Amino acid sequence: MILYTYFRSSAAYRVRIACELKGLQPELRFVHLVKGGGHQHSLEYRALNPQGRVPFLIDGDLRLGQSLAIVEYLDETHPEPPLLPRDAAGRARVRSIALALAADVQPLQNLSVTQYLEKQFGADQARREAWVVHWITSGLTALETTLAREPATGRFCHGDAPTLADCCLVPQLFAARRFGVDPAGFPTLARIEAACQALPAFFRAAPAQQPDAE
Amino acid sequence: MILYTYFRSSAAYRVRIACELKGLQPELRFVHLVKGGGHQHSLEYRALNPQGRVPFLIDGDLRLGQSLAIVEYLDETHPEPPLLPRDAAGRARVRSIALALAADVQPLQNLSVTQYLEKQFGADQARREAWVVHWITSGLTALETTLAREPATGRFCHGDAPTLADCCLVPQLFAARRFGVDPAGFPTLARIEAACQALPAFFRAAPAQQPDAE
Repeated sequence: MILYTYFRSSAAYRVRIACELKGLQPELRFVHLVKGGGHQHSLEYRALNPQGRVPFLIDGDLRLGQSLAIVEYLDETHPEPPLLPRDAAGRARVRSIALALAADVQPLQNLSVTQYLEKQFGADQARREAWVVHWITSGLTALETTLAREPATGRFCHGDAPTLADCCLVPQLFAARRFGVDPAGFPTLARIEAACQALPAFFRAAPAQQPDAE
Repeated sequence: MILYTYFRSSAAYRVRIACELKGLQPELRFVHLVKGGGHQHSLEYRALNPQGRVPFLIDGDLRLGQSLAIVEYLDETHPEPPLLPRDAAGRARVRSIALALAADVQPLQNLSVTQYLEKQFGADQARREAWVVHWITSGLTALETTLAREPATGRFCHGDAPTLADCCLVPQLFAARRFGVDPAGFPTLARIEAACQALPAFFRAAPAQQPDAE
């Protein structure tokens, strides 16, 4: 397997966590999203992945973008330890938490989005950060309410073992800190993050541990 | 089952298509996203769904947001006809197509986002529409390239039966038209949309057919 990654990408970070939890060691290829205007826009990379994003997985004949699709694929092809519960309601809940971060928060903090705000709306750094902080704060506030009140929440987002939901939560809180949002304001999320960070898999997947880290 | 919906919501539309394909008739409850500042922000609705979004599904004890999680849940609990292929690579491909729309395009055209652009950046209607058109066009261009070249594309996004990917594609092309993007510029996507629209399930799920349509 070959995984295209960038150390600071939230989406690539999710897949790295899943790989580490499952003991998978794909060959890593690094796509620098900032240098030279962004290597993801190169003709070579676009020919491989028309979306021009990371992560991107090659496994045999399969060419696969989208972090949640990649994690589900890894979970189906390497089932142990499972990253989704066995019951349909539990699986639904884990996917819902993952999507609340991957579809409702992360797309709005994406580099391409803040670059558009700068170029087309003349938004300076303070206003771009206010934008990102707004979406992170509203998304995390809703998720905190949900996780704090639902009995299915355990040591991790769902029960007492890490799932796809935790693979999304930890990178989102990493991004929150980058933009000045303190996860301590979301006590359930912060508690779960601490449980995750106690696991070596989460440590090894972190941006600072990557060969392409700066 | 109870489904909270709004006729024009792309995400609710996805779930309505899945329900129609499976012959499910959940009790519909209507959440008007515009009137009175948006009923999704009401205390009553937020108490039910802290995210304040549609769709939202109640099935027994389960309270479930996020359209893709809902469709996967319906597919697991009502397996016929299947909305995901049986092989892991096929499932991954379908999820990847669905997410390319649900995570990379739709979040940026969302009402809450264009409202923020208006209030915080003073973006007039023309600039808000240019924003939406930019994200729809770039997302559909990448997806057109992918679907046009991959042999797994058939009469529908994946093979010759509708899947989760088609449940996302049709609402996205509906939204594209609303914002003045002509799907004819994406011939593979337009061809698949036509195949979908020939099925009664897609017709019945359309915004214009909903009891809350205006």
